[in-house]
Amino acid sequence: MIIVGELINASRKAVGAAIEKGDADYIKSVALDEDKAGAHYIDVNAGIFVGKEADYLKWLTTTVQEVSEKPCALDSPDPVAIEAALAVHKGTPMINSISLEKDRWEKLLPVVAGTDFKVVALCMSDAGMPTTCADRLAIADKLVEGLTAKGVPVGNIYVDPLVQPLGTNHTFGVEFINTVAAIKERYPGIHFMCGLSNISYGLPERKFVNRIFMAQAIYAGLDGAIMNPLDKPMMGTIAAAEALAGKDKMCVKYLKAYRAELVKS
Amino acid sequence: MIIVGELINASRKAVGAAIEKGDADYIKSVALDEDKAGAHYIDVNAGIFVGKEADYLKWLTTTVQEVSEKPCALDSPDPVAIEAALAVHKGTPMINSISLEKDRWEKLLPVVAGTDFKVVALCMSDAGMPTTCADRLAIADKLVEGLTAKGVPVGNIYVDPLVQPLGTNHTFGVEFINTVAAIKERYPGIHFMCGLSNISYGLPERKFVNRIFMAQAIYAGLDGAIMNPLDKPMMGTIAAAEALAGKDKMCVKYLKAYRAELVKS
Repeated sequence: MIIVGELINASRKAVGAAIEKGDADYIKSVALDEDKAGAHYIDVNAGIFVGKEADYLKWLTTTVQEVSEKPCALDSPDPVAIEAALAVHKGTPMINSISLEKDRWEKLLPVVAGTDFKVVALCMSDAGMPTTCADRLAIADKLVEGLTAKGVPVGNIYVDPLVQPLGTNHTFGVEFINTVAAIKERYPGIHFMCGLSNISYGLPERKFVNRIFMAQAIYAGLDGAIMNPLDKPMMGTIAAAEALAGKDKMCVKYLKAYRAELVKS
Repeated sequence: MIIVGELINASRKAVGAAIEKGDADYIKSVALDEDKAGAHYIDVNAGIFVGKEADYLKWLTTTVQEVSEKPCALDSPDPVAIEAALAVHKGTPMINSISLEKDRWEKLLPVVAGTDFKVVALCMSDAGMPTTCADRLAIADKLVEGLTAKGVPVGNIYVDPLVQPLGTNHTFGVEFINTVAAIKERYPGIHFMCGLSNISYGLPERKFVNRIFMAQAIYAGLDGAIMNPLDKPMMGTIAAAEALAGKDKMCVKYLKAYRAELVKS
């Protein structure tokens, strides 16, 4: 499971405040926590600061990389902010994210064309949010075709099939997971990257629902998530789910998660 | 999810003792607990009592049905014991279980032929335990063909694909779940019935692993389990997993499970 740590997001109150104050120590401590907890990428997002996003995203990237050798996921729909962060980023970043929405597609495609960047491709178009597996596949096809035509290899594409709340339609869980299975079959070597927590919006005991959803999605082929790597029960769930999905010889990773006290009945 | 309550099994110390003492009150209290907790069938097993199994199974069946209107799952490979219990059983029982092992097949087939009994069909043959999805499918094909040829409709067959411990082979989880998906696709209307807990044999925090496995199996189509219906976290897991699998309109059952305090983060 490729884990992108989601905590350095300006929409979180403490992070937003730290960005405004230039409190590098706080940002570094969060980055270090995410790194140590097992994040493979550190997401950086300064989206709430209109007009200052580029400067702040650049600062976040520099600040994070002073304490962590993990690459960043540069989280913005704005090519100006992405380019500002790219100017200082060390290593191969993840770009989070391009979509089929015309404006976003046209502005971000030149940024990723011909690079070795990892590219999150969101199954969203100007026609609105997809609801069925077929809707999502149609968008994914165009995203993959468009990106590969510009030299982004399939193995660098991280599809986000876009989770919608189960509370609004009882098929939204299974349509999402079926999409994961279908995309994995259609494009061998492709990856996934998405936040799962929207699934439980409006339901009680959301974290419980999120964990069960993660377990099912992993069986279907989900191999990446934007999440809080400090969420121990979720990290334990991932370890058990991957072992059960046949991805953990001798249950080595599951036993490691158990010893780290991530797994508790 | 069709739940068979597994607690009235003579191999459990308190149950074995109650059977020997003729302690009907204890058996009734367990049956009532399972019934109230949501079991659809009450399993009765007196298998450890060689020579007395038939009498005890008959007594268990009568005793259970004095307090519960749920049908029993008559749990024995011995047609004599099954027939003894059938003589007193009210309603449509589940027979647990036939298999492709020659002796068991030949003795139990006449008992279920032409009936409307629910029949658990264990994916086991004299060639030993199946390990791959293909092995299981080959056995399941023969079981389904043999049973339907004798007038047991597909909709009354409950296949047990046979769980084996993940700790002995890292593919055993995924091979089992793939089998569920394949059988469901091959035989529309067929059901499943199995104990899942073997999956975690030898691993730490077994209940945690069992729950994750249940969630994945439900996504693949598992619709029945022999289990402890008093296991609240497992019952909560089933409610969430079925909702996520698209089987719970308006999340009514999940919300009911939440109000019954089965779901806790």
